[in-house]
Amino acid sequence: MAVNLPPPDPASLHRVAGVTPGVAMAAIKKPGRKDLLVIRLDAGAAVAGVFTQNRFCAAPVILARKHLKNDIRALVVNTGNANAGTGADGLTRAMQVCKALAAQLGCKPTQVLPFSTGVIMEPLPAERIVAGLPAAATAEADWLSAAEAIMTTDTVAKAASAKVRLSGGEATVTGIAKGAGMIRPDMATMLGFVATDAGVARGELKRMVKRVADRSFNCVTVDGDTSTNDSFILIASGAGPAASGPRDVQKLEQAISDVAARLAQAIIRDGEGATKFVTIAVERGRNADECRRVAYAIAHSPLVKTAFFASDPNLGRILAAIGYAGVPLDSGRIDLWIDGVLVAKRGARNPAYREEQGVAAMKKSEFTVRAVLNRGRAEATVWTCDLSFDYVKINAEYRT
Amino acid sequence: MAVNLPPPDPASLHRVAGVTPGVAMAAIKKPGRKDLLVIRLDAGAAVAGVFTQNRFCAAPVILARKHLKNDIRALVVNTGNANAGTGADGLTRAMQVCKALAAQLGCKPTQVLPFSTGVIMEPLPAERIVAGLPAAATAEADWLSAAEAIMTTDTVAKAASAKVRLSGGEATVTGIAKGAGMIRPDMATMLGFVATDAGVARGELKRMVKRVADRSFNCVTVDGDTSTNDSFILIASGAGPAASGPRDVQKLEQAISDVAARLAQAIIRDGEGATKFVTIAVERGRNADECRRVAYAIAHSPLVKTAFFASDPNLGRILAAIGYAGVPLDSGRIDLWIDGVLVAKRGARNPAYREEQGVAAMKKSEFTVRAVLNRGRAEATVWTCDLSFDYVKINAEYRT
Repeated sequence: MAVNLPPPDPASLHRVAGVTPGVAMAAIKKPGRKDLLVIRLDAGAAVAGVFTQNRFCAAPVILARKHLKNDIRALVVNTGNANAGTGADGLTRAMQVCKALAAQLGCKPTQVLPFSTGVIMEPLPAERIVAGLPAAATAEADWLSAAEAIMTTDTVAKAASAKVRLSGGEATVTGIAKGAGMIRPDMATMLGFVATDAGVARGELKRMVKRVADRSFNCVTVDGDTSTNDSFILIASGAGPAASGPRDVQKLEQAISDVAARLAQAIIRDGEGATKFVTIAVERGRNADECRRVAYAIAHSPLVKTAFFASDPNLGRILAAIGYAGVPLDSGRIDLWIDGVLVAKRGARNPAYREEQGVAAMKKSEFTVRAVLNRGRAEATVWTCDLSFDYVKINAEYRT
Repeated sequence: MAVNLPPPDPASLHRVAGVTPGVAMAAIKKPGRKDLLVIRLDAGAAVAGVFTQNRFCAAPVILARKHLKNDIRALVVNTGNANAGTGADGLTRAMQVCKALAAQLGCKPTQVLPFSTGVIMEPLPAERIVAGLPAAATAEADWLSAAEAIMTTDTVAKAASAKVRLSGGEATVTGIAKGAGMIRPDMATMLGFVATDAGVARGELKRMVKRVADRSFNCVTVDGDTSTNDSFILIASGAGPAASGPRDVQKLEQAISDVAARLAQAIIRDGEGATKFVTIAVERGRNADECRRVAYAIAHSPLVKTAFFASDPNLGRILAAIGYAGVPLDSGRIDLWIDGVLVAKRGARNPAYREEQGVAAMKKSEFTVRAVLNRGRAEATVWTCDLSFDYVKINAEYRT
């Protein structure tokens, strides 16, 4: 079902010096599948992260946020159980996993970042995870295996890689992600990990992770549902060239953003029931925030999304969504494009527009809806998918 | 498809002295159906209204808002065309209809309130409406016919009526509404008209219409899409007993709220593809606004709505929606009930809860999801429906 999303080519995924993934089969939800990932970091790596804003955030999110202030030596990620909605017991079990891994690696439990994804409100089977740790913490896996080990109901593993030339030499950026909706059925969802061998100061990395998230994972929506476990972690091992000076930082950040955006887009391409990959571009707004509000109003409208599914250039639905976005805009100034077709001009149907043009544009598996507000110079982009029969089917039938 | 919504019994719909509906077949979209309603008001009636907040509001909404400051003598409502997204030409055509009706009734065009519902972005066939006015403006129809004349893709006509004893005698309240989603496919949507023969000062009525809307039409959501044409109008003809004093006003307002809530609930029961009617009650919040935000987060979540459809007591989805509502609540204090079943206690699964209990509650065609925030004394209620295959089918296939 995924829209133009072939599995990653293992040869395209570069190893990152100083960052070593290892996977194991721990039978967390069911036996016989990779479900445990440990990422070991050589001493001196800088790590930064952004996490879900959901008030019901999961136990591992609470711990990872806290541990981030320390020198991190390992990440441990299990699939099959989200350890969310599990209260104090959930924190104890997550810490139990950190302790076991720390003992093996010879570091402190607070130098381990835990992550979980899977069913909500079930107790984490910590003993099975702990039993799997010796294998995962000593194995050396490639990044494709790492991506596979964190899948839940994803239909395709998500990984991307890039090289970038800095003043001190070539740096590598490789990332993996999982998720096929802001929340998967019973699944607590989006995880993204991007590692580079470049050297980046921790303060710089902290600012960078927010900016990168805003240009990648914060630009996607399947259904507007924000998960309890969303986490995006950026690792800079420092085993490769240092990012020294603003120009290096900028180049590195661009490479990281590209990798992160590819991962974020992969999540949408693999969105539940998705048959279309749609870019919503809002331009010439007064500020980025109002552009994002308009873009999300379009991207979240069930009526617009079903129209995408039907390849139906239903202009009224798109204009109505723009109108209720909560932005004090003048409807009489808005232009609307579907790919290269100007469908609405100054708030009303473009007289030259013929419906066949809109249908032709929307029949494609990828297209752009571009709303030009004509009231400023800001812009924002959101990537989304359509709302199909299969979205309802997947979500209605998941547990029945 | 409508959930527990039999057609209104004509005998239950009381006439309202001083308020006379008349309907006609004007072939606005297609011939042979009632599609034009005129409501004549005797001199002295007070009229108040609330309208869509959508920036792409329709031409008739712009005019009705403006005309409301005058003494209103008639309302004219057409179905089949929304006259929205039609620019200056739309205003001219709406005014043309007001002028023609005013000429027949011997009043000013600015004493007429126009309303339209139907397809967006098509020119209003004003000449066909004008041709139908002589019949509609002289006929005397019952309120069921009036309700039928404003249907678009509604499957059931929506009307309700009540009597209330005031100090000066018995007053009558009768209302009609249309709509089956915040936006119907290509339809610009929700219209509600409630009339009473009670005498109410205009200033009082103006305050009352807002309070009533907040307890009825502003408590419903099918898909979160706010239409371009939403209007709710309250008429007090004064032909019956006057509402004199706070106690009368309170009793009358209660009767009007009851009628409006029945109409609002009828819209949800007739929601696109609806198979369940669900009440979302949020209690013990700090203020009503945060309760509403939590209620709408639950009611708008596509994941929660598909779980309703599947009778799947998927607690994680509901708790996650509460968590991302944007309210700074403590997840560890939240209790969640489905009808009489306590499913989550203090933010985690209630140990005594068994899944069969949740399934049994949700298999019913009507049930209540009750979230108790335990941080204050405010509350809010929202009525919604599930997200079914038919929602996607109706909206994807409407124009194809």
